[in-house]
Amino acid sequence: MALFDVEHVLSQLTLEEKASLTSGLDFWHTTGVERLGVPAVMVTDGPHGLRKQDTTADRPTLDSSVPATCFPTAAALGSSWDPELLRRVGQALGAETRAHDVAVLLGPGVNMKRTPLCGRNFEYVAEDPHVAGVLAAALVEGVQSQGVGTSLKHFAANNQETDRMRVSVDVDERTLREIYLPAFEHVVTHARPWTVMSAYNRINGTDASADPWLLTRVLREEWGFEGLVMSDWGAVRSRVAALAAGLDLQMPGAGSRPDDAVVAAVRDGSLDEAVLDQAVRRVLHLVARTQPGPGDPAALDLDAHHALAREAAAAGTVLLRNEPVDGAPLLPLTGTDGLLVVGEFARTPRYQGAGSSQVTPTRLDTALDALRAVDPAVAFAPAFTIAGGPDGDDDALLAEAVAAARSASTVVAFLGLPAPDESEGYDRPRLGLPPAQVRALTAIAEVNPRVVVVLANGSAVTVSQWHHAAPALLETWLGGQAGGSAVVDVLLGTRAPGGRLTETVPHCLEDTPAFGNFPGEAGHVRYGEGVLVGYRWYDTRATDVAYPFGHGLTYTTFGYEDLRVGVHGEGADVRVDVAVTVTNTGARDGREVVQVYVRDPQAAVLRPVRELRAFAAVDLAVGESREVTFTLGSRALAYWHPGLRRWAVEGGEFVVEVGASSRDVRASATVDVVGEPLWGELTAESTVAEWREHPVGSRVLADATAGAQVPELDETMAAMVAQMPLRVVADFGITGLSPDTLEALVDATR
Amino acid sequence: MALFDVEHVLSQLTLEEKASLTSGLDFWHTTGVERLGVPAVMVTDGPHGLRKQDTTADRPTLDSSVPATCFPTAAALGSSWDPELLRRVGQALGAETRAHDVAVLLGPGVNMKRTPLCGRNFEYVAEDPHVAGVLAAALVEGVQSQGVGTSLKHFAANNQETDRMRVSVDVDERTLREIYLPAFEHVVTHARPWTVMSAYNRINGTDASADPWLLTRVLREEWGFEGLVMSDWGAVRSRVAALAAGLDLQMPGAGSRPDDAVVAAVRDGSLDEAVLDQAVRRVLHLVARTQPGPGDPAALDLDAHHALAREAAAAGTVLLRNEPVDGAPLLPLTGTDGLLVVGEFARTPRYQGAGSSQVTPTRLDTALDALRAVDPAVAFAPAFTIAGGPDGDDDALLAEAVAAARSASTVVAFLGLPAPDESEGYDRPRLGLPPAQVRALTAIAEVNPRVVVVLANGSAVTVSQWHHAAPALLETWLGGQAGGSAVVDVLLGTRAPGGRLTETVPHCLEDTPAFGNFPGEAGHVRYGEGVLVGYRWYDTRATDVAYPFGHGLTYTTFGYEDLRVGVHGEGADVRVDVAVTVTNTGARDGREVVQVYVRDPQAAVLRPVRELRAFAAVDLAVGESREVTFTLGSRALAYWHPGLRRWAVEGGEFVVEVGASSRDVRASATVDVVGEPLWGELTAESTVAEWREHPVGSRVLADATAGAQVPELDETMAAMVAQMPLRVVADFGITGLSPDTLEALVDATR
Repeated sequence: MALFDVEHVLSQLTLEEKASLTSGLDFWHTTGVERLGVPAVMVTDGPHGLRKQDTTADRPTLDSSVPATCFPTAAALGSSWDPELLRRVGQALGAETRAHDVAVLLGPGVNMKRTPLCGRNFEYVAEDPHVAGVLAAALVEGVQSQGVGTSLKHFAANNQETDRMRVSVDVDERTLREIYLPAFEHVVTHARPWTVMSAYNRINGTDASADPWLLTRVLREEWGFEGLVMSDWGAVRSRVAALAAGLDLQMPGAGSRPDDAVVAAVRDGSLDEAVLDQAVRRVLHLVARTQPGPGDPAALDLDAHHALAREAAAAGTVLLRNEPVDGAPLLPLTGTDGLLVVGEFARTPRYQGAGSSQVTPTRLDTALDALRAVDPAVAFAPAFTIAGGPDGDDDALLAEAVAAARSASTVVAFLGLPAPDESEGYDRPRLGLPPAQVRALTAIAEVNPRVVVVLANGSAVTVSQWHHAAPALLETWLGGQAGGSAVVDVLLGTRAPGGRLTETVPHCLEDTPAFGNFPGEAGHVRYGEGVLVGYRWYDTRATDVAYPFGHGLTYTTFGYEDLRVGVHGEGADVRVDVAVTVTNTGARDGREVVQVYVRDPQAAVLRPVRELRAFAAVDLAVGESREVTFTLGSRALAYWHPGLRRWAVEGGEFVVEVGASSRDVRASATVDVVGEPLWGELTAESTVAEWREHPVGSRVLADATAGAQVPELDETMAAMVAQMPLRVVADFGITGLSPDTLEALVDATR
Repeated sequence: MALFDVEHVLSQLTLEEKASLTSGLDFWHTTGVERLGVPAVMVTDGPHGLRKQDTTADRPTLDSSVPATCFPTAAALGSSWDPELLRRVGQALGAETRAHDVAVLLGPGVNMKRTPLCGRNFEYVAEDPHVAGVLAAALVEGVQSQGVGTSLKHFAANNQETDRMRVSVDVDERTLREIYLPAFEHVVTHARPWTVMSAYNRINGTDASADPWLLTRVLREEWGFEGLVMSDWGAVRSRVAALAAGLDLQMPGAGSRPDDAVVAAVRDGSLDEAVLDQAVRRVLHLVARTQPGPGDPAALDLDAHHALAREAAAAGTVLLRNEPVDGAPLLPLTGTDGLLVVGEFARTPRYQGAGSSQVTPTRLDTALDALRAVDPAVAFAPAFTIAGGPDGDDDALLAEAVAAARSASTVVAFLGLPAPDESEGYDRPRLGLPPAQVRALTAIAEVNPRVVVVLANGSAVTVSQWHHAAPALLETWLGGQAGGSAVVDVLLGTRAPGGRLTETVPHCLEDTPAFGNFPGEAGHVRYGEGVLVGYRWYDTRATDVAYPFGHGLTYTTFGYEDLRVGVHGEGADVRVDVAVTVTNTGARDGREVVQVYVRDPQAAVLRPVRELRAFAAVDLAVGESREVTFTLGSRALAYWHPGLRRWAVEGGEFVVEVGASSRDVRASATVDVVGEPLWGELTAESTVAEWREHPVGSRVLADATAGAQVPELDETMAAMVAQMPLRVVADFGITGLSPDTLEALVDATR
């Protein structure tokens, strides 16, 4: 039941009150109207845990929030490829949010990981919009099932921190439609988030927070979004322009001047009051749907939430490599006798990133503690410092670690990025680990080949220079407050490593898609790679990578067989049914993430070599087989047609590939699909080839040129002429056309 | 002495006559005004030879021109890196042009080779603007020394044939200024071509032929161009718009409708008659400066021109590879005993490309004839066909060639692209040789390891799949009518291979800079690689290549020593003097092309790893040493500042590298350069970091925040705040600023 009747309140509001409602009261609250019973409600960061600041502070310090469960970051959660897990995490997040009387949790973030250098990648799910959209939708549904809202962010194309509050993302519409918008589209259309947060950046010169195409045309008219759009904190340069574009709520409060400007704009007619009313209506709807929380955080089952965080961290841990040493892979560890742990991160974990998502955890597990809980005799040598000297180099610590490694049965080395390497607000200074860590690893591996490396970092790091020294390599991302115990679960085989990469691990920075364009110059960043983001780039350019998108080993193996693909319908109504049988062929129970990619080998536009269109996480006992089925709609085959400005299924061959990563395709099938007619209107500037391909134009042109006395064209000349606009051909008189007849020809095709 | 007084004629013209003068009379002539003694003058293609069509034909067939010397194409001439040679070729071209009573030779082309797939690359000089500009300027000076004009084309950014008459090149200004315009700029400012030809394509949506920024602001106002701008044939969509933008002459004639439109536009005031007068004045100037030719082609010394064509072809031939076999390199050949020639191209040479530059040669040398003139016993087997079946595969021909190869002393295989692979009007369908040729080469190399491959192609082909089978590899490009005898000169060592690559030979198409963006979609091509064109891309991305830009072996070797680099002045007035001593360290006289590259290791914009800024071809006898000196101006260090929109020398370290290719740097020196102040005006949207870096702003900001009670920021938060616009910081209150004080702060910096 709503707290109040929105339309009634709206009818009672003064113009000044309306204006005030479209911005925050302070840093974290909406503005209320006491005389009409409209309360101020609170919104807080962030995507993997509640960051509710001490409410006596209204300015952004990042370390004064109430304790809350710090779940794994989006980078780790995304790696699970498990929507049900994200739904459960969302439910826990929602419960904590509501218990603390907060109306909206500001997240999740579904921006694409355009470059691994983006300092905020740990808050984002994937380099692929399908996996990001499906997983974030589940999280949103989970949170909102608890009677609190989410804010899907940062809408849109906020893919870097450098100059994020000003930079213009210069990008073509097809790239937006195929790469940067679909994750938002999926969440909006499937999970109906209460709010969407508009981004700081500009898109093609227009503020994302004041872009009518983005906030109204696409978000509301095309996708049917009925919730509220709030700005990222400080993103609004002009409230009047933002309101006119479709933004409803400027955050945080920015004093009285923007309110005054809105009032003035309505009074002088430059802003339609109906536009303001609509924004106010959406703010009131948000407040009205907010249910008062129990206000009793003590009633939360924080132990259960911690256990869920632990489960999720293991599910998001990616086993990149597990090569045999002395005939057997190092993982899972067969025991802890003589085990040596090295790396300061084992004792001082990195488990979340810096910035607005920074949570004060309810507890904090370390891997070292978790291992010693199993076996108190596990040895430890820090090997390097995290915060200290240049990159943590410390000769004495290293010597101690190497000495210990000589006699260890196995060494588990905890490496990662120091906290200042990745944060909201700026981008990463480097793609690699600090050199001191690589030096330590190399020195240790020289004396003991049985080295397991555990990585903690929020975004891909380069590994190609050193991973030969680590027969086993686990990527844990930033695993939240239970990451330490979770990785021990994985090391010991209590849990299997559940993760698959949602971002490619490249060999080097120069190989990455945005290299040379990122982070842009003079306020502009060119998205020069277009749709070739992430694995779409590496696979299409045939660039070797360290570990491909979708990759992740487990403690068992899987076989794929009997792929069947059926096509039903055509064009915009096409449906493709896919079925494949997957078998656990190894010696342990396990989970496979079955990935379905689609290729379009020939098209009028450049298409990535393959694109992920469906996936399923399947638990299989030893020896168990299961048929896994998928249904692909037309969007799985379509591209955004830049000329027609709509989705288009171009007919022809498509290849459906099923596999365990973008580079580990286990089965594929080719199908023929009947496409849509994709003709544009013919004009005098249409080429001869376009006239000939057009069902009406071809006839008109043939009639017009029949019988003309024209020289025979050789192969080369004929190819040249085919690409000429009809206007030029007529000017040249090559086919017997004359400029005076062109208009009539064009008219004949209409 | 001018034919008539331009201003007098202009004053006598009717409006209709003026309009008519701004377009061609027919396909090849300007419009005259008989009553005022203004003749129609003829212009003809093309850059490497006169293509004067039978004047009774006024439509474009490509094979009815009068015989003229077919010099090597621009791809081959450019590879000489020899401005004096291009000047001499220009003189010969100019002499033939004048002898045939033609006023303007339509060339040279200095468009950048953005992709090796561009079908017209053979008409262009280089992937680097410096080498293209210097060489084309020499050719222009040579042609124009004969009293005829040139037409520098295609202005600008005409880098592909696909959809060339419509496509919009979507490119940022810095990339235009640094890559696509400088060759034009160099030729215009150094060689003063009589005319410039505007391109077919659009740039950022505006027709290049109707772009006031391009044709007036940049070309005339910035570069001081005083000649005439004519359109590429059929490039004008609206004469009125084109005239207003700075185009003077629409080619070819397009009937009376465009003239009528100009008359109407002047009458209704939408076109200022002064604009029309200026265009007419330029047309009249062109006609007036045209000297009547002798009209006696028979007086030309065509033998001398053929000899020059032969010299030029050898100078443009690049020895890519010359690995030892049995202890010695295969080239130069030590004799012709037992020599086998294979490949149809030896008998049926490809020596020029198709399209408007196609010349009817005065004679045609074939390599086979030239070799048999030396030794009639030289054997020949065609091995494949050029025009025949799928890609020229022919089992019988191949078997015959393999059989002959078994007993040959050495095999010289003539391979290349069939003519339909590259032409004006469409782009190349593939980057590799026809598979039949690779198959033939592989089969032959299996029976005889002594294989020399001679390539004929207008633009780079991939070699990485097969060049291991060719210990010696010569790239002859399309070498003109004397290419056959020239390559025999090189094979036998009569002449050294003089060429160096002006375009990188990549391993594969996927490695090329424009891959994924070329040829564009729906009328737009994104220049997503920005300034990283050619070697700038490969070197900056650290991508391995088959043969790098600047590479070319000779029959001797060179040493570099004693590099000295001196900096004089600073900022926009900086001058860098470079001197290096080069020595012929081999056993034959030879020519080295000394290349000077500049690196700017750290800058506010992305800079290519290295850029060619100077070069010199130096002839050295065995054992001879010479000091080679260069003077670099500020443009050699500057980049185009996208914010300030001007050239800017950013201070700091620069590295001057001297070497024999972009990947064969023999000596380098680091210098410190004092830069220019590059501050922009501060605003409320300027970041904290920008305020702090600004000499006035830093003081203003420090004063404004002094004494404010603000929380201490940790490292991460401080880095976040530095990137925030001052407006946001004030909204957040982090530094004690408030929104109300911002205006005063900004004012205080002005």
